[in-house]
Amino acid sequence: MTTTDPFPVTGAWMPGDPAGQRQFFTFAIDRRFALDSGATLADVTIAYETWGTLDAAGANAVLLCHAWTGDSHAAGPAGRGHGDAGWWNSMVGPGLPIDTDRYFVVCANVLGGCQGSTGPASLCRDDGMPYGSRFPVVTIRDMVRAQARLGEHLGVARWMSVIGGSMGGMQALEWAVMYPRRVRSVVPIATCMQATAQQIAWGGIGRQAIRLDPKWRGGDYYEAEPGDGPGVGLSIARQIAQVTFRSDNVLTDRFGRDFSGRPEVGDILGMWQQYEVERYLEHHGTKIVRRFDANSYLAIGKAMDLHDVARGRGSLEQAMARVRMPTMTVGIWSDMLYPVYQQQQIHDAVKRNGVPSEYHEINSPHGHDAFLINGDQIAEPLDRFLGNISKSVL
Amino acid sequence: MTTTDPFPVTGAWMPGDPAGQRQFFTFAIDRRFALDSGATLADVTIAYETWGTLDAAGANAVLLCHAWTGDSHAAGPAGRGHGDAGWWNSMVGPGLPIDTDRYFVVCANVLGGCQGSTGPASLCRDDGMPYGSRFPVVTIRDMVRAQARLGEHLGVARWMSVIGGSMGGMQALEWAVMYPRRVRSVVPIATCMQATAQQIAWGGIGRQAIRLDPKWRGGDYYEAEPGDGPGVGLSIARQIAQVTFRSDNVLTDRFGRDFSGRPEVGDILGMWQQYEVERYLEHHGTKIVRRFDANSYLAIGKAMDLHDVARGRGSLEQAMARVRMPTMTVGIWSDMLYPVYQQQQIHDAVKRNGVPSEYHEINSPHGHDAFLINGDQIAEPLDRFLGNISKSVL
Repeated sequence: MTTTDPFPVTGAWMPGDPAGQRQFFTFAIDRRFALDSGATLADVTIAYETWGTLDAAGANAVLLCHAWTGDSHAAGPAGRGHGDAGWWNSMVGPGLPIDTDRYFVVCANVLGGCQGSTGPASLCRDDGMPYGSRFPVVTIRDMVRAQARLGEHLGVARWMSVIGGSMGGMQALEWAVMYPRRVRSVVPIATCMQATAQQIAWGGIGRQAIRLDPKWRGGDYYEAEPGDGPGVGLSIARQIAQVTFRSDNVLTDRFGRDFSGRPEVGDILGMWQQYEVERYLEHHGTKIVRRFDANSYLAIGKAMDLHDVARGRGSLEQAMARVRMPTMTVGIWSDMLYPVYQQQQIHDAVKRNGVPSEYHEINSPHGHDAFLINGDQIAEPLDRFLGNISKSVL
Repeated sequence: MTTTDPFPVTGAWMPGDPAGQRQFFTFAIDRRFALDSGATLADVTIAYETWGTLDAAGANAVLLCHAWTGDSHAAGPAGRGHGDAGWWNSMVGPGLPIDTDRYFVVCANVLGGCQGSTGPASLCRDDGMPYGSRFPVVTIRDMVRAQARLGEHLGVARWMSVIGGSMGGMQALEWAVMYPRRVRSVVPIATCMQATAQQIAWGGIGRQAIRLDPKWRGGDYYEAEPGDGPGVGLSIARQIAQVTFRSDNVLTDRFGRDFSGRPEVGDILGMWQQYEVERYLEHHGTKIVRRFDANSYLAIGKAMDLHDVARGRGSLEQAMARVRMPTMTVGIWSDMLYPVYQQQQIHDAVKRNGVPSEYHEINSPHGHDAFLINGDQIAEPLDRFLGNISKSVL
């Protein structure tokens, strides 16, 4: 079942608009969708966008997997329900490495999200009320299973490549392990095989901040007036993440010890002047509140903490032995959240099994976010990698 | 004016107890104490402990400066109002590098603190009520000025050495710059000349978490029932700091992806099992709430963010040109909060002026906290450094 965009933006949408058009696929209508947790969901909707055309052999499909607060809008301008331009505009488009003239490119909002796919803010079929606190824990594998349903719906028997950074890379790895025969190559970027204690620590602290916000209301805040939700808690959680997404050097270069000229929020005496770096973080916090649902932030964060390709598969080695397709892994030297040793471990695990594996490192001071900021550094190897896969025998 | 400990612990205190005895010095009784902010305080009390004996020449005095949530109890067992054993027991005592048989060792709780020195929880002379939200911003320099008054009170004309890690190192540096003729040597450890944007970022986010707690009550929560203060917010702030005090590797080695066997706090479905690293952080959060005042946490954190030896002194070079005494700077290779380049900058700034300067690095995976955990690694150089200073001509 495909429906059209329920959030049309006023203004003419042109057929062939390079931004694509957000579409919706709903499944688990007759039979409920079973999750890793044991819970089940009915009427699961996945919002997605596509660019380019699936060839007759169904062999040129590329799946892009987005990160924590990303969505299906990987490429294209802002508008049509998207406040921001595509998150990988530098990489996805005609003539770009993920070439929409050559490949059929798909990007779906993850299960648990809030950009059109079923998540905590969605209405539960049983009572027509938002799930809220009733939304079950989802895992990266659940997200991938939902994407697999979408792939079937789109007629993609095998993805030419599954590509993603950060949480998107977790999905790419799970695709390789769960569906090795449906994936011809994977490109995990700035990601890991198992969430580390430090990643869990940051995630868990952020969740505590959201729950501390009295306006979170135990997760059932959807009847609150606009602006009366857990915005302060969500902002704090995002600010924690934002620092881990960047680097000491970049924050120093950009903000140093400059003052913002504003008093620090909550300072009664008005004597605690805010630093520019605090204003920057506050800006990012405010921005996420406008575009993202706090419960989705909780659910997706927990899914990342639960990420472990070894879970239920004997060992990490046994899990990674399922990865039989060419792999291009990318690290970022300044990434303090997913340090490069984690991507080197992926590369080594694949290579150890005699499977073609490449490792590339983005030489950027921008930390974890460099896969979005300096994607151009992997343009040439990614273009070559995908070109080789597209030419390989199916 | 010296008073005795108002919080005696039941049990016999033995004269000569190596824990020392917490004492209290109060100044600014007749004339108010002016702060950097322009505000003034009356009846400023500083809680302190001493070990050893000041020699006849007044030449063997060592000042220890504690870190964020530390206090005057640098050495000795728990008890006598101290829930924990001395924070530098491995370094301070008879026959140890900071040898209490040879040196007269002093450690004072900082201005703004909550372990006996005047801070937000203290009673304001004007109305006999806790300062709460009325407590002014204090700076590292204000803390040092209060310590200078204490030094005069104790008859210490010149400190043989001023030693401290983290915020304690900020104080040591300010001592060197503010009172170069009252300090014969300084030992700044795991610290910096100017708080960086990243340090400010972490500090500012933690403060937001405290303020989000509705039980913070704008800073005026001292009339609340015990346990009804801003404990959740303070716990979150502390957990953020705790992650930055450690390292990715150590968290992985110690906790990995182990589950704690408990549900995640605030999880309505009881399906979000807590990870062991989350339980560890929660433990540290709970511990700080029992022993530390949230407003002191705010005040001291802001003092660190404001730390800048260059402020009002023309330039960093001009400020550091005042450091004319031998300096032993210590870094920790795994410190992500105060990376070693910051200590190397101190060393270089001192050396550049032709002043004797040593740099030592603690080879520990434990991150920032290694100055407490692996202090023994600098035992030998510190012993030698202090021995040389003690033998030098006054």
